[in-house]
Amino acid sequence: MAGDELAARKNDHLDIVLDPSRTKRNGSTGFAAFAFEHCALPELHLQQINLGTTFLGCPLRAPLLISSMTGGPAQAATINRHLAEAAQALGIALGVGSQRIALETGTDHGLGVPLVVKEVGAGISAAMVRHLVAASVTVIDVAGAGGTNWVTVEAQRARTPAQKQAALAFADWGIPAAEALREVHQACLGTPLIASDGIRDGVDLAKAIRLGGDLVGQAPAALPGALRSSKAVIEHFNVIIEQLRIDCFRTGSADLTAPRQARVRSPAQPPL
Amino acid sequence: MAGDELAARKNDHLDIVLDPSRTKRNGSTGFAAFAFEHCALPELHLQQINLGTTFLGCPLRAPLLISSMTGGPAQAATINRHLAEAAQALGIALGVGSQRIALETGTDHGLGVPLVVKEVGAGISAAMVRHLVAASVTVIDVAGAGGTNWVTVEAQRARTPAQKQAALAFADWGIPAAEALREVHQACLGTPLIASDGIRDGVDLAKAIRLGGDLVGQAPAALPGALRSSKAVIEHFNVIIEQLRIDCFRTGSADLTAPRQARVRSPAQPPL
Amino acid sequence: MAGDELAARKNDHLDIVLDPSRTKRNGSTGFAAFAFEHCALPELHLQQINLGTTFLGCPLRAPLLISSMTGGPAQAATINRHLAEAAQALGIALGVGSQRIALETGTDHGLGVPLVVKEVGAGISAAMVRHLVAASVTVIDVAGAGGTNWVTVEAQRARTPAQKQAALAFADWGIPAAEALREVHQACLGTPLIASDGIRDGVDLAKAIRLGGDLVGQAPAALPGALRSSKAVIEHFNVIIEQLRIDCFRTGSADLTAPRQARVRSPAQPPL
Amino acid sequence: MAGDELAARKNDHLDIVLDPSRTKRNGSTGFAAFAFEHCALPELHLQQINLGTTFLGCPLRAPLLISSMTGGPAQAATINRHLAEAAQALGIALGVGSQRIALETGTDHGLGVPLVVKEVGAGISAAMVRHLVAASVTVIDVAGAGGTNWVTVEAQRARTPAQKQAALAFADWGIPAAEALREVHQACLGTPLIASDGIRDGVDLAKAIRLGGDLVGQAPAALPGALRSSKAVIEHFNVIIEQLRIDCFRTGSADLTAPRQARVRSPAQPPL
Ligand SMILES: Cc1cc2nc3c(=O)[nH]c(=O)nc-3n(C[C@H](O)[C@H](O)[C@H](O)COP(=O)(O)O)c2cc1C
Ligand SMILES: Cc1cc2nc3c(=O)[nH]c(=O)nc-3n(C[C@H](O)[C@H](O)[C@H](O)COP(=O)(O)O)c2cc1C
Ligand SMILES: Cc1cc2nc3c(=O)[nH]c(=O)nc-3n(C[C@H](O)[C@H](O)[C@H](O)COP(=O)(O)O)c2cc1C
Ligand SMILES: Cc1cc2nc3c(=O)[nH]c(=O)nc-3n(C[C@H](O)[C@H](O)[C@H](O)COP(=O)(O)O)c2cc1C
Repeated sequence: MAGDELAARKNDHLDIVLDPSRTKRNGSTGFAAFAFEHCALPELHLQQINLGTTFLGCPLRAPLLISSMTGGPAQAATINRHLAEAAQALGIALGVGSQRIALETGTDHGLGVPLVVKEVGAGISAAMVRHLVAASVTVIDVAGAGGTNWVTVEAQRARTPAQKQAALAFADWGIPAAEALREVHQACLGTPLIASDGIRDGVDLAKAIRLGGDLVGQAPAALPGALRSSKAVIEHFNVIIEQLRIDCFRTGSADLTAPRQARVRSPAQPPL
Repeated sequence: MAGDELAARKNDHLDIVLDPSRTKRNGSTGFAAFAFEHCALPELHLQQINLGTTFLGCPLRAPLLISSMTGGPAQAATINRHLAEAAQALGIALGVGSQRIALETGTDHGLGVPLVVKEVGAGISAAMVRHLVAASVTVIDVAGAGGTNWVTVEAQRARTPAQKQAALAFADWGIPAAEALREVHQACLGTPLIASDGIRDGVDLAKAIRLGGDLVGQAPAALPGALRSSKAVIEHFNVIIEQLRIDCFRTGSADLTAPRQARVRSPAQPPL
Repeated sequence: MAGDELAARKNDHLDIVLDPSRTKRNGSTGFAAFAFEHCALPELHLQQINLGTTFLGCPLRAPLLISSMTGGPAQAATINRHLAEAAQALGIALGVGSQRIALETGTDHGLGVPLVVKEVGAGISAAMVRHLVAASVTVIDVAGAGGTNWVTVEAQRARTPAQKQAALAFADWGIPAAEALREVHQACLGTPLIASDGIRDGVDLAKAIRLGGDLVGQAPAALPGALRSSKAVIEHFNVIIEQLRIDCFRTGSADLTAPRQARVRSPAQPPL
Repeated sequence: MAGDELAARKNDHLDIVLDPSRTKRNGSTGFAAFAFEHCALPELHLQQINLGTTFLGCPLRAPLLISSMTGGPAQAATINRHLAEAAQALGIALGVGSQRIALETGTDHGLGVPLVVKEVGAGISAAMVRHLVAASVTVIDVAGAGGTNWVTVEAQRARTPAQKQAALAFADWGIPAAEALREVHQACLGTPLIASDGIRDGVDLAKAIRLGGDLVGQAPAALPGALRSSKAVIEHFNVIIEQLRIDCFRTGSADLTAPRQARVRSPAQPPL
């Protein structure tokens, strides 16, 4: 793809993702299909809870990644500056680069943030993961279906009605995020895992950790703030971090142990 | 929490819970997931049915507790007087005190009604119950999810939009009331059990007994009456008691034996 | 109940059941949970199909019973005359008498139609059926939940708001018709069985036979016609009989063999 | 049926099927109950993918059949000419003849397209298929429920209200297309199989192949185009063919191997 075309495409993505009337989720992520078991007497203080973790040797104040983007658009430069400043201030990770670049270089990118093999919106199967690990990939970003629907985003950029119609048959395509995550985790125990796609809040974040994520990514939800200021981005992620903290509190955990191991329940079984 | 602040909070609770447009249930209690088996020929008279029971040595005319509240507000004093007069007239139990006080004192509170370890709106896990029983707690009040949604109630009291947003991620949190009840019952056979949260009528009440409750609590549904008079409260609970009586009749039981042991069915299996 | 009161009650029933805005079904009958397997090449003519059966020694042209009613009301007399004339013309059965009378006499009633132990709207459990068979009852009419909702019908006749509210907690009570039927059939193989409640059309009728019914009853659906003329009643039941005939055709059966034995399928299993 | 009557019937079918307000699907096809596993790194080019297949010795550029119709109507002649020209240009199959004729002749029909035993809208059971194969039928067209609802189409042609009402009880009749297909395939491994009914797009087409279809038919969706020109028909099917190509791409398959064998997943299991 030529540079101009790529830039135009990235601008289109921004415009579409920022307009709620033009975006829709593809199916469900599957996170709602299970829930943490409530701990009625946590015996700890909310403020004591330590959300810190280490990812590829880098200490982070929370297991959170701001998924980001490369490419031409002027708008994107501002956005990424705000995201980077926020990541710095919050002590969380920032993702850069497109999958294409990541696959070609397979190295660190200068911002102290690892590059990853990443698939967006349709999930990675266990078979593919074993293939990637065998090919010495160090980090996998598992994004399944249920978040931003890239099929419908791209369908809005279709040049002909036929192209658009052809694309829309795939609007529901993809392994739900939660299932993709669990399968990949089981297929590559030990390989650092990023979970993206469809993370709405800190409860989803905790569930993504529970399913095997080492780091959890969120992107488009931060975009409205990122257009304004790094402060707005910080405020956005502070809510998510606070929710993760409350999730730890409600599962009685002073650190990430509970999100990683706590008992979960799937709802809707008759009690008798 | 300071006295004034607590009083303000209690007033807020009353205002919010009394306004249907501001309250919503969190998920379902799970009581609808099973049903008593109908007894086509009960061979008894409705008026013969004896709903009497004994709780902690106190005889009651029905296994019913009016869950109540402590705290400053003038409004609450009137409400509680009406509730207390109604409990007296009906020969049913009245709950007083907040969980905090209950945990500290662990003793009777003067109105002849036992204090209990109680969790509201999210359920108690089996693990926690065994912990409480080991710590010599005498009564457990199991309130699960599906009734008054305290997360959304408190969210309406949030001081900042960020606080509110952080809270709302937990609106669906909690073990459904019916499941929590069954689990706690199995984990602490012998410990007197109060079932609260989400009891809408005498059929739910009978189901809560079926799942192991010795006493069944109801609170906010009685509030509109409690603002008016003890007579209005009595009328409210008489309907519930009459429904429990009809439930006994329809399961062919002259006392609480059927609610405690009757065969239940879970709907929605294909008959062939 | 005094005669006048009973007559008033029967009149109320008619008025309520005839007014669609005042009646609602209680839950589902469960008939929709399974379906006959389609026979793509029936190799028979629709008009050849013989729906004849014998019930308690009486030959019938179809396994159909017009469930009816006794009691005072003038209106009911006309209705029952139309129903009786239609039953005669169609060669199908007509039910008379109330359960109360049936239980006391246990004998034939003069119209050549047997009286039955019958429960309406909540089903009979297997345990109760064994009890009835042991007590020498000859015919059982199994009516489960899912048809006319007698709880809501009676609730509209409640004398006080409290009575009405007490009743409405039972609006969903009862064993779904299809389940009740299957259970009773298995509990009393050999005892003639009538299936009532919630039969909407000839497909439901065939399913009720498949679940063990020897005769299938329908009542309120025939009421609008019964107010007009026996011709209107005949037209109503001719549609149902025609549907039963088509059901036999579509299952490749020249008589009631298929409705009694054909393979059924429960929908909604993933094909792979 | 007389020629005139048949012609009138065919015209009615066209009018009804072309009017969205008069057509409805009967239940679901069942195709949505499973999904192909996504292949994140296909390692092939979209344009390389070869969709070619052979059916009864005839090479086809895609496993696609335009299901068509015989009969009198002038309108139908135009439609069929457009469909035939499109099939020729696209290198896909065209179905002709009614089931009745097919069963009587059992031979080729001159357009180089085989005639098949075909049932429309209700599915063929495994038992019936074994019967047909034993009777030397060479091709089976399995059309199950979930597509054009022929019961409601015919109900709109009913001569009397009673006929219409009798028919409508069967609006939900039939084995869902996907289930019928899988069962027939398992019952007659080796017999060429056409899958019709309810195919909305190339993803459904790929799923129909996955369930055992050798050729997949589509008809009414092409009708609006077929009224206009062969070009419009070609454009319609090009979208479907492009979708099948994308489906192959997304399952990492350079030909029809993946649609035939790829791993599938049924959604909606809790991930933990
Ligand atoms: C406007 C926009 C641009 C994006 N650009 C890139 C990119 O260049 N490279 C990349 O790997 N991911 C990119 N992504 C994907 C996100 O990093 C992220 O993986 C995905 O949106 C997360 O799923 P979610 O939307 O469900 O939260 C972009 C996302 C958005 C919304
Ligand atoms: C306005 C209000 C105030 C309450 N105050 C107290 C309290 O002070 N202490 C306490 O243990 N429970 C308190 N509760 C909880 C109730 O006693 C009860 O456990 C709960 O509301 C029952 O669940 P339900 O709303 O689903 O029926 C209060 C409830 C309401 C509605
Ligand atoms: C207006 C009306 C009056 C009825 N009266 C009697 C009666 O006197 N005795 C009786 O056994 N059943 C009576 N039934 C019950 C019907 O015979 C029948 O069992 C029931 O309505 C069938 O269920 P369905 O409404 O779901 O079809 C009456 C039903 C209606 C609608
Ligand atoms: C207007 C119309 C006329 C049809 N005529 C015939 C016919 O004459 N012979 C035949 O075998 N199928 C006929 N069909 C059935 C189609 O070939 C096809 O099997 C069916 O419509 C496919 O199901 P679908 O509508 O769910 O895609 C006709 C369909 C339509 C819509």
